[in-house]
Amino acid sequence: MTAASDGIPRVIRLDLAYHGGPFHGFAANRGVPTVEGLLRRALGRVLGHEPDLAVAGRTDKGVHARAQVVSFTTPRDDLDLDRLVISLSALCAPAVVITSAAWAPPDFHARFSARSRSYLYRVLDAPVGDPLRADQVWHVRTALDLEAMNRGAADLVGENDFTSFCRRPKHPPGASLVRGVTEAGWERVGDEARFRISANAFCHQMVRAVVGAMIEIGRGRRTPDLIGEMIRRADRTGAPSLAPPHGLVLTAVGY
Amino acid sequence: MTAASDGIPRVIRLDLAYHGGPFHGFAANRGVPTVEGLLRRALGRVLGHEPDLAVAGRTDKGVHARAQVVSFTTPRDDLDLDRLVISLSALCAPAVVITSAAWAPPDFHARFSARSRSYLYRVLDAPVGDPLRADQVWHVRTALDLEAMNRGAADLVGENDFTSFCRRPKHPPGASLVRGVTEAGWERVGDEARFRISANAFCHQMVRAVVGAMIEIGRGRRTPDLIGEMIRRADRTGAPSLAPPHGLVLTAVGY
Repeated sequence: MTAASDGIPRVIRLDLAYHGGPFHGFAANRGVPTVEGLLRRALGRVLGHEPDLAVAGRTDKGVHARAQVVSFTTPRDDLDLDRLVISLSALCAPAVVITSAAWAPPDFHARFSARSRSYLYRVLDAPVGDPLRADQVWHVRTALDLEAMNRGAADLVGENDFTSFCRRPKHPPGASLVRGVTEAGWERVGDEARFRISANAFCHQMVRAVVGAMIEIGRGRRTPDLIGEMIRRADRTGAPSLAPPHGLVLTAVGY
Repeated sequence: MTAASDGIPRVIRLDLAYHGGPFHGFAANRGVPTVEGLLRRALGRVLGHEPDLAVAGRTDKGVHARAQVVSFTTPRDDLDLDRLVISLSALCAPAVVITSAAWAPPDFHARFSARSRSYLYRVLDAPVGDPLRADQVWHVRTALDLEAMNRGAADLVGENDFTSFCRRPKHPPGASLVRGVTEAGWERVGDEARFRISANAFCHQMVRAVVGAMIEIGRGRRTPDLIGEMIRRADRTGAPSLAPPHGLVLTAVGY
C-alpha cells in the first residue's frame, strides 16, 4: 500500500447501479457472487488495495439499485476519478455500472451520513405477464385496488415501529425498529402499479413486507386498516408473505 | 390424434411475447432451447399432438418479441381457448407469454397472410450504461447524431433491394431480396435513441444490418448517403458490423 503525499487517507464516494439478478445481495458473502465482492475485487485491481466499503442500502438477493452509494478510504491521492469510473465499470459490467466517483469530505460515510433512502416497487396487475419486464416487476393476475392500498400506505408515514415488517435476525438484539417514513404511496403508470417509499432508514426486508401486506389489501383479502394494525401490534407473527425481491429497486439516497 | 366432430382441421392463431435471452432464436433447432421448441412441447401436452407451427417473424438468437404471431391446424374443435392461453402460459413462463388464442379463418397462415412486420431497435448512447436495461438496449458510448441517421433512414423507405443488408445463406438461391419498407426513422425517447421500421417482410438480419450501418453514420464515421449507396451497390462485402441482437424487438405484425 502506497502512502499518500500528505499521509492522510482520503474518502471516495462511488455512485452505482446494478441488476440484482446475478447477485446474492450487496453484502460480501463467501462462495456466492455479491455486488460488494465484485466491486472490492475491481477496486483491488485498480487501486492496488481492497478497501472496506460502506454502503447506503444493503440490498438483499435479487433487489436492484438505480442509485446506490458506496464510500471507502484510500491512501491514494493521485487518482484520476474519471478514469476510475471507466476502469471499474469495465471490470463490473454489465450487471454493475459505476455512474460517478468523487472525492468526499473526510467525515463522509455512505451509510452513516445518509439521511434518506428511497425505493420503488413495481407490480404488473394484469391477466398475462410481460416477459420483457419479468425480471423487474412482480406479476399478479388480479387487478389491484390502488385507492384501498393508498389508504393503507398513509398509515406508514411518520415515526413508526416496523417490528411487524422486519426480519429480526439481521438487527442487534434490542435495537429499535422505529423508522421515519416521509413518503409512501401507489400510483398507476401505464399498466403497472408502482409504490414509492422514502424513509430515514429501513429495517431488513421492510419494503417487501410492506408491499406484501398492501397487495393483500389491493386484492380485497384484507382491509386498509391492516397496515395500522400491524404497526400497533409490533409482532411479525401471521404477517402476509413478503413481496418477491425482483420488483424492488433502490432509487435514491439523500445526504 | 383425435378427429374433430366435422373432420375438418381448424386453424388457431396464437399471439405471444418473449424475451430472446434464453433462446437460440425462434426456429426449432435440435439440442438448443428455442421458442418454437418450447411452444410445440407445451402444445403437445395441452392438445395431445405437436402441431407444425407457422410464424410471422423468425427472430434470431437473442431477439425479443412483444407481438409475435403463430398459427397451426388442429383436429380438436372442443378447445376452450381462454384455458389454452392459461395452460400454455403456465408451461412457457416466464420467458414466453401467450397473450391470446383465437380461431382463425381456414386460410389463415401466420407467415403467408402477414402483410407487414414492425420492429423497434433501442440504443442507449451515453457514457455509462444501465444494468437494468442491459438486456434490451445496445449501449454505445458516443452521443449519436439522429438527424444524420434519419437522413440515411429515409433512403430505406420504398421498394428496395436489401442484398447489402442480408445474410444470403438463409434465403433460397436466386430469391429476390427486394422488400417494401413503409416506415423507417429514429426518435429520441428519454436517454435512448429508438429506431422503428415497418416493411412487408424482412430478409435475414436486415434490421440489425441497417441499424449497424446507421450507427456508423450517427457516430460521424460515415455520411448519411451510406444507406442509399449500400442499396444501389447490392453487395454485402465491406458492410458495417451488425448491431447486436438484444436491442431488437418485434413489435407488431399486420394482417
